[in-house]
Amino acid sequence: MDHAAAAWTSLQAIREGAPLVHAITNQVAMEVVANSLLAVGASPVMAIAEEEVDDVVADAAVLVVNIGTPTRDRLAAMRRAATRAAALKRPWVLDPVGAGATPYRTRAAQALMAAGPTVIRANASEVLALSGDPSAPARGVDSLHGSDQAVDAATRLALQSGAVVAVTGEIDRITDGRRWCEVSNGDPRMTRVTALGCALSAVLGAFLAVEPDPFLAASQALGVFGLAGEWAAAASAGPGSLRWQIIDHLALLDEAALHGGLRIS
Amino acid sequence: MDHAAAAWTSLQAIREGAPLVHAITNQVAMEVVANSLLAVGASPVMAIAEEEVDDVVADAAVLVVNIGTPTRDRLAAMRRAATRAAALKRPWVLDPVGAGATPYRTRAAQALMAAGPTVIRANASEVLALSGDPSAPARGVDSLHGSDQAVDAATRLALQSGAVVAVTGEIDRITDGRRWCEVSNGDPRMTRVTALGCALSAVLGAFLAVEPDPFLAASQALGVFGLAGEWAAAASAGPGSLRWQIIDHLALLDEAALHGGLRIS
Amino acid sequence: MDHAAAAWTSLQAIREGAPLVHAITNQVAMEVVANSLLAVGASPVMAIAEEEVDDVVADAAVLVVNIGTPTRDRLAAMRRAATRAAALKRPWVLDPVGAGATPYRTRAAQALMAAGPTVIRANASEVLALSGDPSAPARGVDSLHGSDQAVDAATRLALQSGAVVAVTGEIDRITDGRRWCEVSNGDPRMTRVTALGCALSAVLGAFLAVEPDPFLAASQALGVFGLAGEWAAAASAGPGSLRWQIIDHLALLDEAALHGGLRIS
Repeated sequence: MDHAAAAWTSLQAIREGAPLVHAITNQVAMEVVANSLLAVGASPVMAIAEEEVDDVVADAAVLVVNIGTPTRDRLAAMRRAATRAAALKRPWVLDPVGAGATPYRTRAAQALMAAGPTVIRANASEVLALSGDPSAPARGVDSLHGSDQAVDAATRLALQSGAVVAVTGEIDRITDGRRWCEVSNGDPRMTRVTALGCALSAVLGAFLAVEPDPFLAASQALGVFGLAGEWAAAASAGPGSLRWQIIDHLALLDEAALHGGLRIS
Repeated sequence: MDHAAAAWTSLQAIREGAPLVHAITNQVAMEVVANSLLAVGASPVMAIAEEEVDDVVADAAVLVVNIGTPTRDRLAAMRRAATRAAALKRPWVLDPVGAGATPYRTRAAQALMAAGPTVIRANASEVLALSGDPSAPARGVDSLHGSDQAVDAATRLALQSGAVVAVTGEIDRITDGRRWCEVSNGDPRMTRVTALGCALSAVLGAFLAVEPDPFLAASQALGVFGLAGEWAAAASAGPGSLRWQIIDHLALLDEAALHGGLRIS
Repeated sequence: MDHAAAAWTSLQAIREGAPLVHAITNQVAMEVVANSLLAVGASPVMAIAEEEVDDVVADAAVLVVNIGTPTRDRLAAMRRAATRAAALKRPWVLDPVGAGATPYRTRAAQALMAAGPTVIRANASEVLALSGDPSAPARGVDSLHGSDQAVDAATRLALQSGAVVAVTGEIDRITDGRRWCEVSNGDPRMTRVTALGCALSAVLGAFLAVEPDPFLAASQALGVFGLAGEWAAAASAGPGSLRWQIIDHLALLDEAALHGGLRIS
């Protein structure tokens, strides 16, 4: 399959359709998540109150749930929104930030797993924690593992949950339990900017709104986001410029850039 | 009247007096709101706790209330702050983000209306929803209507509430129920950056601190903010750069720029 | 002592060790705090829930607590985290944003003082309020005093609390009650960007993770952050660019820059 052509078709569909993406994300990430969604052409709605998420999920094409900076109220809204999305058969993304780092986060992620996410976007340590690997250590919200160390765990997690699992790292690995795909776009300097992983999960939500196969949607989103990051890093003196350059490049990517730069295999 | 001269007088007064503007805004917007206020020369205070808003409103020249990402606690603080502002006869701005999009937001906006805002800054769909138009549809937090479709609703809302109503869109329309004014500054690319409408509402608050006629304050603020957006858009490759360029240009606008660029009629 | 050599040693140690810094900061500042920590080479974790702060503090090298935009839940998490840090003898920084501006904030800051901060980073008005000066006025979250007016109060506060007190302003003054140090890095334009003081407090936390003497750690952090601000201001047309330039320059500062530019005495 021509991944670049398919990714370009999806990106065009997002830009033309401006799908409504409901993102319940962490307090550090809200601004860059909203601006990343706008930059790819989607329409973000960032509602976080349990009182209104039923209505917002019903209006939205996709839900994205990110458990960074969890609080009681925020998690309650997330559970309700995820349950609603499942009931309406809306695709939804789970970003289990810091699962394994504290018992509170691990439990929060597990409770959300019960609602059946369409895609789980996580780093290797988080995937190990979610798959029930009791030896998985964690340190803050950064991964201590390469994505290659989470291959078995990702397969197991995908088969158990029915979700596509996208393990991001130097090389991103995506599986639905049967198929595997690798994406090697991105730049290591992206790890020095906070919440770009959260922004990626939200952009993945936008791709889910236009590409019915979540395995393909995930690989396209990871490739496109990573490619924008490469262009941004090349144009940046440091992490302060990278942060706004990636928003510019998400908006500027064209067909030639995708054909020349996507590394999805 | 010479709108540019009056706007320049107001902007100078903000830069010299650094009025304290208390903004209770949504979690996506807090940073760009604070930086926009600083950029025009005002002094932001972003207190959100019901326990301290009485004291903060009493110290501030103006209050700005924005219901995006509403939560129970935040809305309680907003109602208390608005009630306090009304009791102290402090001018205050209501930005009813997403009114009409969910019943929760519509009720929140209506409850705040009871405290008598000085200015309502909203898009056309929000004005239709607030004016009680039962047919007004909404989709997320973006308007589905042009500002021209909200002319009757804005007039009705202004007369009912006693507030100046500023309906922003491709052309901004401002009314106190008797007078009308149009502002055609701004650039469509501003809609691809999150929370710039929230930042505009806060900047409008700064103008209310120095211009006693809220109808004039609103038109000046919309012109100045839109003009900064035009300069920013002209200097930007994409929405990532536009976001910081507009902060730069809010700080850099001078008398010549206002005389040459404001389109208020 | 050669302050520049010592500051360079600390900065290298942060970049090599990537110490985990747990920052519970205000909602306006979260993004710039996380990105400032990443820019100097530290690893931020921004957990805010009372339910998980015990675990996060235990993993982290340093805790940073900032009371801006206080809420009941956030303050409860801060008190718990500070108490835990004290029990584990982890160094921790208190940034008492707006102490003196409202009784709610003053009480919040005093309650946290009971847990024995390692360093208090504050402006002059906040130091006066914390030292119990009953005449200390305040206006919003900006200082009405120069750091020279808080010399006696800072000494008293340091002796009473056992903390190093870093009073920032045009000239920063740092004391542990016996020693005094002045840092004259920085640029006045930094005051026109929101939350840079909060970012500085967090960066100070990173220095505490590698420099055992908190008096030296504070002076180094203030010098390095101020120097990055000078470079950023020189490269910026306005406050919008200054905000990302300072993140770039925190990451780019090298040994020569520190030797040529630090003004610590």
